[in-house]
Amino acid sequence: MTRLTDLDTPAALIDTARMQRNIDRMQRRMDELGVRFRPHVKTSKSLPVVKAQMAAGARGITVSTLKEAEACFAAGVTDIVYAVGIAPGRLAQVAALRRRGCDLKIITDNVATAQAIATFGAEAGERFEVWIEIDTDGHRSGIKPEEATLLEVARTLRDGGMRLGGVLTHAGASYACSRRDALIAIAEQERAGAVRAAVRLREAGFPCEAVSVGSTPTALSAERLDGVTEVRAGVYVFFDLVMLNVGVCGVEEIALSVLTTVIGHQREKGWAIVDAGWMAMSRDRGTRAQKIDYGYGQVCAESGEVLDGYFVSDANQEHGIVSYAGGIDPDIVARFPVGTRLRILPNHACATAAQHPGFQALAGAGEIAAWSRLHGW
Amino acid sequence: MTRLTDLDTPAALIDTARMQRNIDRMQRRMDELGVRFRPHVKTSKSLPVVKAQMAAGARGITVSTLKEAEACFAAGVTDIVYAVGIAPGRLAQVAALRRRGCDLKIITDNVATAQAIATFGAEAGERFEVWIEIDTDGHRSGIKPEEATLLEVARTLRDGGMRLGGVLTHAGASYACSRRDALIAIAEQERAGAVRAAVRLREAGFPCEAVSVGSTPTALSAERLDGVTEVRAGVYVFFDLVMLNVGVCGVEEIALSVLTTVIGHQREKGWAIVDAGWMAMSRDRGTRAQKIDYGYGQVCAESGEVLDGYFVSDANQEHGIVSYAGGIDPDIVARFPVGTRLRILPNHACATAAQHPGFQALAGAGEIAAWSRLHGW
Repeated sequence: MTRLTDLDTPAALIDTARMQRNIDRMQRRMDELGVRFRPHVKTSKSLPVVKAQMAAGARGITVSTLKEAEACFAAGVTDIVYAVGIAPGRLAQVAALRRRGCDLKIITDNVATAQAIATFGAEAGERFEVWIEIDTDGHRSGIKPEEATLLEVARTLRDGGMRLGGVLTHAGASYACSRRDALIAIAEQERAGAVRAAVRLREAGFPCEAVSVGSTPTALSAERLDGVTEVRAGVYVFFDLVMLNVGVCGVEEIALSVLTTVIGHQREKGWAIVDAGWMAMSRDRGTRAQKIDYGYGQVCAESGEVLDGYFVSDANQEHGIVSYAGGIDPDIVARFPVGTRLRILPNHACATAAQHPGFQALAGAGEIAAWSRLHGW
Repeated sequence: MTRLTDLDTPAALIDTARMQRNIDRMQRRMDELGVRFRPHVKTSKSLPVVKAQMAAGARGITVSTLKEAEACFAAGVTDIVYAVGIAPGRLAQVAALRRRGCDLKIITDNVATAQAIATFGAEAGERFEVWIEIDTDGHRSGIKPEEATLLEVARTLRDGGMRLGGVLTHAGASYACSRRDALIAIAEQERAGAVRAAVRLREAGFPCEAVSVGSTPTALSAERLDGVTEVRAGVYVFFDLVMLNVGVCGVEEIALSVLTTVIGHQREKGWAIVDAGWMAMSRDRGTRAQKIDYGYGQVCAESGEVLDGYFVSDANQEHGIVSYAGGIDPDIVARFPVGTRLRILPNHACATAAQHPGFQALAGAGEIAAWSRLHGW
């Protein structure tokens, strides 16, 4: 039986009790709001995590790559939304998955792609199910709810014999919020925009069964979801320091950390050097522009206890520099002797997890299980 | 035969002709300076790249993880320096590699670790070869050349029966330079500091055969390397936008790019959306603080031609936003229609490469070979 003390460092550690509480919390909230929940696999890219989400009541999944779709379909999940605008060159792979029985939905936000989908579908004899991507906050892709393009895309799909399955939006701008009222407002903006797009489509005679919204901050802040059929969220499963700053989790809910070892010091600078550099933490510095900047991560004891004020102030590829936020700690060498093991909470769970081939899943009883992750496309 | 147009996106593309020129340029310079060259495997983590470096004249390699050491030793490379301060918990793996015939050197910068090495070595019957890490620029680990600790570490190793093989330093602060005179100065500071530490050791009666220095900027800027026996460098093999800003390469020498496809637009903002987000580019924003900030990367045509002013201005996990630096490009949709393939030059080759399970190596004749990479520890 593998235990925490047996692990090599650096290692990506999941506190499975916290993860399960996060899964249950989100599913309970979605049940209260009366919507289906479709977790985003992009955060974990790991089947044991997906299975825990499905067991808790998730209805289908969201993926960021077709590799995730292939792996989850092979594991028995059939209801899948690929939530990145489809590149025409990927339609053959989508068609192959659908022919094998995978109920894979694709998205687009433009007429050129809709036309490419229709042309490919007609030639391949495949009636793709397409959801139209809606832009409700200006942060990335999507058609604004009132734009003429919305109906043009719908018409192109219908005339080409494709199935228009619904609309989908993601209020990624919610990551920039940190006040409860702002979160409630952007959740409502996300909801209202998606529902408005659906209403426009229906009034123009198009079907629009699914109204899909979501991001972790808006999912946990929405007060009502009238007209929405499903919510998507990813990072809630682990949470992270960015979500802590946004205000949708407590530090004791962060389920992912990087286990590391102290390898040296610079005493006069108050530095402990650890073997978790940016290769283990990722280069994500999401808290840089937030109310508390945690550098490359918050330092905790090996037990998980948060060590207030200690953070990873800088990182090279395989070196992290642990400092005290309040100034030079003159006792840094005695506090963290060489060989000391620490856990680092990450800025962004999706990015940190991606640096690791797998997770070490730590159960309450102290037993560790190795969970593999997908890497690449 | 696979060609560029057959590749799925995103993909990490190596221009092998550029890579070979970069390898030859560095080796030639090291030969002129009369030092051995020990390339750092951390950039590519890929055996075909390492083999090209060895074939050009490299004498041994540098690694950032024991996984790299294991893989390169299995491929026939025996002279290896593991250039991250050894964690005592890794000594068993080092000893096992050495017993199998790998001439693996380890480093440390503190007495506690030196003692742990000696204790473990005595118990295991292994005379580890240890190099002492020297700090010549204050950026990370190491003992300053004049510190008393230098001799204490040497004494601890000698008294414990270990082999003191030399000194090693890395002037990582050179990455912050951008003027030729500053680069020459920091290269000289790196050289002088390492040589001074070696002289102190020798004067105190300790052996110090190897004097190892290096970083890509200092290696390419040093005017003399008297007293140095070898140079280490990693990123020179591909170069990147950070090195372009530092001034040690031209844009036409950057050998790594990410192939991507346009999946949509936001016309009124002048955005093209591509399928290379931060998962493909990494979150590294090394050019943020440099003279030219390239966002998440410089945009090139699929052919490799640099498209001046077009850059990846923002990135989500699987989405990159291509913008024009000079303001909104009103013709963005016509310029980069959906399905257009582009290449993105990265901020930092080591970080971008790490996001990919392998490289697509593009030879001059247009043929593509798949080169795998190591992932994890």
